[in-house]
Amino acid sequence: MKLRGYGEDRLVTELLRDLTRGKKVIVGAGDDCAVLGRRSDRVWQLLKTDCVVEGIHFRPDEDRRRVGWKALARALSDIAAMGGEPHHALITVAISAESDVRELKAIYAGLNKCARRFGVGIVGGETSRSPGPLFLSIAMTGEVKKGRCVLRSGGKAGDELFVTGRLGGSISGRHLDFVPRLKEAQWLTKNYRLHAMMDLSDGLGADLPRLASASGVGFEIDESSLPIGRGTTIPSAMSDGEDYELLFAVAPRDSEKLQRAWRRKFPKLPLTRVGRLCSLATPRKAKRSGFDHFA
Amino acid sequence: MKLRGYGEDRLVTELLRDLTRGKKVIVGAGDDCAVLGRRSDRVWQLLKTDCVVEGIHFRPDEDRRRVGWKALARALSDIAAMGGEPHHALITVAISAESDVRELKAIYAGLNKCARRFGVGIVGGETSRSPGPLFLSIAMTGEVKKGRCVLRSGGKAGDELFVTGRLGGSISGRHLDFVPRLKEAQWLTKNYRLHAMMDLSDGLGADLPRLASASGVGFEIDESSLPIGRGTTIPSAMSDGEDYELLFAVAPRDSEKLQRAWRRKFPKLPLTRVGRLCSLATPRKAKRSGFDHFA
Repeated sequence: MKLRGYGEDRLVTELLRDLTRGKKVIVGAGDDCAVLGRRSDRVWQLLKTDCVVEGIHFRPDEDRRRVGWKALARALSDIAAMGGEPHHALITVAISAESDVRELKAIYAGLNKCARRFGVGIVGGETSRSPGPLFLSIAMTGEVKKGRCVLRSGGKAGDELFVTGRLGGSISGRHLDFVPRLKEAQWLTKNYRLHAMMDLSDGLGADLPRLASASGVGFEIDESSLPIGRGTTIPSAMSDGEDYELLFAVAPRDSEKLQRAWRRKFPKLPLTRVGRLCSLATPRKAKRSGFDHFA
Repeated sequence: MKLRGYGEDRLVTELLRDLTRGKKVIVGAGDDCAVLGRRSDRVWQLLKTDCVVEGIHFRPDEDRRRVGWKALARALSDIAAMGGEPHHALITVAISAESDVRELKAIYAGLNKCARRFGVGIVGGETSRSPGPLFLSIAMTGEVKKGRCVLRSGGKAGDELFVTGRLGGSISGRHLDFVPRLKEAQWLTKNYRLHAMMDLSDGLGADLPRLASASGVGFEIDESSLPIGRGTTIPSAMSDGEDYELLFAVAPRDSEKLQRAWRRKFPKLPLTRVGRLCSLATPRKAKRSGFDHFA
């Protein structure tokens, strides 16, 4: 059977089932980052890889500086989603030998700009020929204090769901120069007990079901409350993907205080309550949507 | 100017020049792995990424289990070259949506087989669509005891140069199911003071100049001594690449004892003295050869 039509989530589940997990693994495949260390450690290590592919994640004519920025920022968004702090990155590029040297240098300029902005060290990588499309993969390490590490799986029925920023319409350009929500996530995990968190890369309609499923609960979305981007629609906010905003779940008793403090701390960035987690016995799931590599 | 003809080493030098290095970096880009930690730490962390690309590192019709094995084993070979022990891997695959699900599962079967054999935990990754060729990138972590970490840059004039195994002719199939020299490297670094080490991926003719250059010395190769593989030639042993054997430099006073102990410990794997490092004032370099992605 072809990958097209198989479904990304089903595929990932099947691939991960038989993996050799190894030692000192707090969280293996399936969350935004792998979490490594001993249960007793004060600080855990984060590990993430992510890639962008020409013709899939960016157009062939796209400015290569923005492509470099995007590649690194995507991995940073996953570090943010764990409440972590990024440390080091390794870069893997496969590029046609017919490409101009300036193309590769522009990619590195974008990578470097993003690395400097967020205090990441680029400590190596690999450059290979590609027979065609440009392929850019990032491996990222980070750390998170044990008590601040937020997984996808800790959501509880009754939790309120929040998203940062605005959703939808990223294809108009924001997907190439978005700002990963590191600062915001670190502030949230330092000051509040978030039950679950992830970053929105495939759209709320695809990502929220993943968070709910990992937490073993159902969910409700209040579509009329969605913080839709200018010129976009509710379906677009649910499905476009590449928002790279945070989605998190918090107990109702913490919700009001968190919102007030947020408005003082980040007055320019909206924080919106978009729904709640509920028990699986009363599932009122929104229709699944969002980006699926193998839909 | 096109990448083809630019030269891989020149390209890498230029890309790495302006990198943001970050904190806690013992060795950044340019060695087999990045080495992270504080100088005072007892154990340092190793970090490596590597990729294989369809049509470059393997033929389109190649058995995907062997491709998966090769991808992981290449990264393990780099961990070995530092004297390290591998810990965790993350997998990034970009594959056409028109591929059969079994193709991806075969890749993971090969990855898993290699991971189990060498005690590596696979803790996550990313699967993306590719508009064409298959890309497979591995991020690998490991550890090395501070006193056993061997870099490319510690070679001294007068050191004797050794290679493990046989060189050349890997294209006949060995490049797909080679055994990374982890056990051998760990034994070497535990028992001897190696001055410099690397793994041979682009051929002795390309890789030895890199070790010598990193060490700030010249080198001599005794071509007649090369341990050439069955059915191959000296030029082939110098240039084919993908041997994934160890190349290391050791003081002459340690050489005889090391060779005797090696024969007892690894009776089936040849260890061959292939030349020596010399001062830059008397360079008698062999002609540069070997694989260059952007020659």
